[in-house]
This record gives sequence, C-alpha cells and structure tokens, in this order.
Amino acid sequence: MPSEFDLIARYFTRPAHHTRLAVGDDGALITPEPENELVISTDMLVEGTHFFPDADPAALGWKTLAVNVSDMAAMGATPRWALLALALPRADEHWLAEFSGGFFACCEAFGVDLIGGDTTRGPLNLSVTILGEVPRGRALLRSGAHAGDDLWVSGTPGRAALGLAHLQGRTHLTNAAPCLEALYRPQPRVALGLALRGLASAALDVSDGLLGDLAHILERSRLAARINETALPLADLLRFTDDARLAKSCLLSGGDDYELLFCAPPQHRDAIARLAGPLPLHRIGTLIEGSPDTLILTDAQGRDQPLDPRGFDHFADTDCP
Amino acid sequence: MPSEFDLIARYFTRPAHHTRLAVGDDGALITPEPENELVISTDMLVEGTHFFPDADPAALGWKTLAVNVSDMAAMGATPRWALLALALPRADEHWLAEFSGGFFACCEAFGVDLIGGDTTRGPLNLSVTILGEVPRGRALLRSGAHAGDDLWVSGTPGRAALGLAHLQGRTHLTNAAPCLEALYRPQPRVALGLALRGLASAALDVSDGLLGDLAHILERSRLAARINETALPLADLLRFTDDARLAKSCLLSGGDDYELLFCAPPQHRDAIARLAGPLPLHRIGTLIEGSPDTLILTDAQGRDQPLDPRGFDHFADTDCP
Repeated sequence: MPSEFDLIARYFTRPAHHTRLAVGDDGALITPEPENELVISTDMLVEGTHFFPDADPAALGWKTLAVNVSDMAAMGATPRWALLALALPRADEHWLAEFSGGFFACCEAFGVDLIGGDTTRGPLNLSVTILGEVPRGRALLRSGAHAGDDLWVSGTPGRAALGLAHLQGRTHLTNAAPCLEALYRPQPRVALGLALRGLASAALDVSDGLLGDLAHILERSRLAARINETALPLADLLRFTDDARLAKSCLLSGGDDYELLFCAPPQHRDAIARLAGPLPLHRIGTLIEGSPDTLILTDAQGRDQPLDPRGFDHFADTDCP
Repeated sequence: MPSEFDLIARYFTRPAHHTRLAVGDDGALITPEPENELVISTDMLVEGTHFFPDADPAALGWKTLAVNVSDMAAMGATPRWALLALALPRADEHWLAEFSGGFFACCEAFGVDLIGGDTTRGPLNLSVTILGEVPRGRALLRSGAHAGDDLWVSGTPGRAALGLAHLQGRTHLTNAAPCLEALYRPQPRVALGLALRGLASAALDVSDGLLGDLAHILERSRLAARINETALPLADLLRFTDDARLAKSCLLSGGDDYELLFCAPPQHRDAIARLAGPLPLHRIGTLIEGSPDTLILTDAQGRDQPLDPRGFDHFADTDCP
C-alpha cells in the first residue's frame, strides 16, 4: 500500500500560483496583501451524513471544495488558498485519482491554491479549510441588515433538495439531471459575492435551507422578516415536479444549493437587478423590526402566516446529504 | 439532542483576543501584521488511528490543538488562530465539556484564538487548522540545512512511545506517569522555535519518529546525515526501562513527543547551548554531503552502521496512536 507521503505526492501536489511555500513543510507560507483582511472558514464532509457511500468521487471532490468556496462568496471574499485533511478507510488509487481530479477542477475554476493538508487512515472524512482575501472592512457579514432592507436570493434554490428527494425515492423526476447537477456540482456564487460588496448589507450562503439560514441573519442582525410568497422562485422547481408542496418545501427548507441569500437597502434595488444575468436574482421579502424568531409568509391574497425557520441540522436530522 | 448550533455556542465559543470576527459568520476575519507572513497547517486526529476510543477527553482536547501548535513551533512562528472541525458519533455533553476544556487550556497556554469550525455527526474525527505569524522570510523551513551543520534535538524524545508501549502491554514501566504525560499532554516547543529564528538552518517537529522526520529534512535539503550514538539522550529513557533495545527504538522511531529536530551551523553552537534550560538540547549529529536516503549511526567504538529512516506512516502502520 502506498505511504501517506506517496499519496500526497501523487494526488495532492500541483503547482501553486500565489503561495510562497505550499505542500511539503510543517506549514504553508502565504503573504496576504497588506490592505486586505483574511477570511477563513472550515467545513467537514462525512460519508453517510453529507454524501452517500457510493458518491461519484470526481463530483465529491468538486463539492468538497465548492462548499468552502461558497463561504468565501458569502463573505464577498476572493477565494485564494485551501487545505485538505482527509481520512480514508483504504488507499483506493482509482478513487483518489477521481476525487483529486474533481477537487483540482474546482481549484482551477476559482483560482484556489491547495497549500497543505493531512492524509490518514479512518472512516471517510473530508475536511477543508479555505482562506480568502477581502479589502479591510468590506466583508459581507450576517450582522449588517437593517429594517426596511430588501431580502434577495440568487438562482433557483431547491433544485438540490429535489434531486435528493428523487434519489431517495420520495419523488420521481422525469428530468432529474439539472437537479442532480445542482446536488453534485454546486456552483459557488463568487462573482456575485464580489459584486455585492458595497451593495448588500448582509449575506450568507444557503447550505442548510433558505429559512434556516435566514434565521442566522435575523439573529445576528436582531430583526424579523416578511417573505412574499408570490416572489419565491417556485416556477423553476415546478418544471421538474407537479408536487407543489414538495417544491415549496425544497425551496424553503432544502439545503445544498449554495445560493446567496442577502439583504440590501431599497436604493440599491436597480443596481442589484443589473447584476442578474444568466444567474437570476429574486427579491423575495423585506427585513422588519421584530423578534429574530419571527418569520412571516405573505400569500398571494395578502394573508400573513408564520413560518418555522428550522433548517437542516446535523444533529437533529440524519438525512443524507 | 442539542443542535449543532447549540453545541458550538455551549462548548466552542469563548472571547477571542486578536480576531476581528470569530465564530458565528460564514467565515472568520483576521488581520495579520503587514510585515508578517502567515504560516498555516492542518492535522486530523482519528479515533482508532491516533487515539484510543477510551482516551481521556480533556487530554485529547489538549493534544488536538497541541500537535498543531507544534507545527507553528517547528516553523519558528507565533501561533495565533485555530479552527476546529469535529465529527461526533453523538452529542455527549460530558465528553464535549471535558474535550473543549482541554482544547481551550491549550489555546490559553499558547495565546491561540479559536475562530471557527464545524460540528457534524460521524465517526469521531478531530481536524484542526492553525495559523501563525512569522516575520517575512524568517520562517524555519525543512529545506535550509547545509553540509557541516550540526543536528540537534530538544528534550527527551521517546518518552511518549515508551508510554504507548506500556499501555499496549509491550513493556511494563514501574514509573509510567512521565511517559504517559508526554503521550497525553505534549508540550509544543514554541519558545524554542521562536528563539531558533536566525540560528537554525532547518527545523521540524518530531511527530512520526526522529529518523523518519529527519528523512524529511534530508530530502528537502538534499543531504545525508551522521548520528553520533553516544550523543543520543538515551539515559533519560533508561530511567524508565532497562530494556535498552526498546529505549533506543522509542528514541529513534517513536513519534508523538513533538520535540524539535533542527540543524544549525557550528558557529551557532554556543548560542544554541545557551537556549537550553529546563528543556535540554542535544547535539546528536552532523549533516553531510550524500544521498538523502543515507543515514549513518556512529557507535561508541567509532564504527559506522546504516540506519533505516522509516518512520511512522499512517498507511503502512496501524498502531495507535
């Protein structure tokens, strides 16, 4: 069986582009631009909790980095460097070649240098730390929203959850491919995050479900929110399923699409609308004064109904992913 | 069962001392000093591979951070920030309280802010990323040694391996406590690493065994080495065991003490000797021209014998830890 060092040399060593010293010493050396702050985040993916044991390794490699790149997008940061620690039950070279290929494809797509990591024996576990740069004081936080701000979401959240429901046999999609693509190869919204600096007052990426993640903004910004049901991008999901209840549930509570959910003052409404291109941007509600556990859905008839902000929780829910 | 967010709030949130934004957003924000480089490293500890299932959680918490702090010491960097991703089979609050207590004790001992992390369900896995600062160009690398440099090691390497042999029933120590302390609560050599900036030409921390880790310096510096057997700090280990063969094996191949192994030109010999205090420093050999897989042990009679530099390898060896 190849050694830990052989594995790293063979599968996880590629030229770095903006790193003084990458893989191979006790630590990597990087030199951020002095006018920038560093943004750092870590995410751990576990077999059986976040992905199925038979997950395609190339797609898994992409997703392992993509969910971390998405955290940089949510902060309005440029992703720059990543470290990958992985526990493997065995050194399966085919799996490693596919996985690292997917991982580096995502590195290349977003300009990320892999600068370090760790490889060890154990139940399959993929842990990435990512670092990005943002000009000082310009990061998009969860805590900056104000009452009266618009609430926006990018793209078509819910596709990944619909794809998962299909895989789990809870529904049958005749055209499942776009939903499975969203589930397997999420596209972090880095360009949008950068464009939102100076426009958005708060932002995060939707990893655990739109409502559950919105609750984090509300908690950190000490606000409540009203969502306009008719503004929700439900039509996209209804192209794949005629189960409107499932579609709505996927849209509001499904995670794993990695769209950006953000707040912005109404005076930036036009500027934000102009950012939409192939990636649609939906203005779905308003931030209001109130207790952070207050979420109101206003329906087409103007009737208000309370919403449960409970999102996906890795200890409350054992669904996969 | 408490949620992921409750667990983080209850056990892994303490005031940060030198961090603009720590736990609670999509990423943490830090601002390194402009004259510094950042040093970054990651280590993953897996139950059954690195520690026993019944490991004391407080000691495990300490060690989880300490092995990462040790990487900063080996680079001559000041440890500053850490992120902790952990997969837990269940939310055992007693275990979490003890583990986080040990982890934060190490944070406080070495001035490290915990700035982020991830908590998920899965087989027990502890993954830490650590960041430190070092003035630009002054980090201690593995690649800087020259032929003629002295080879030094700090402390009393081998104690942890002797403690492990005791636990595994391969030997019986009448006074096991100091060896178990070395195994359970390694003391990263941060002060020594900082003092060696400008003196040492190369350094690393001995995590996988003295010879195995020395091989990394030789490979990166394109050199061979000669070790003087009589200079090895064997006497300390012989206080615990009269099995000289085991003691020598623990000293040369045992990992997990996290002592520093470093090279320095002979003109710094006195300056380095003056750094020794309660922590002894042993000059054990010399770097020489030659192939990096050449390691020679010179015995008390002046006879040379070749050494096998094979250290602990997580895929070649299933010992625990």
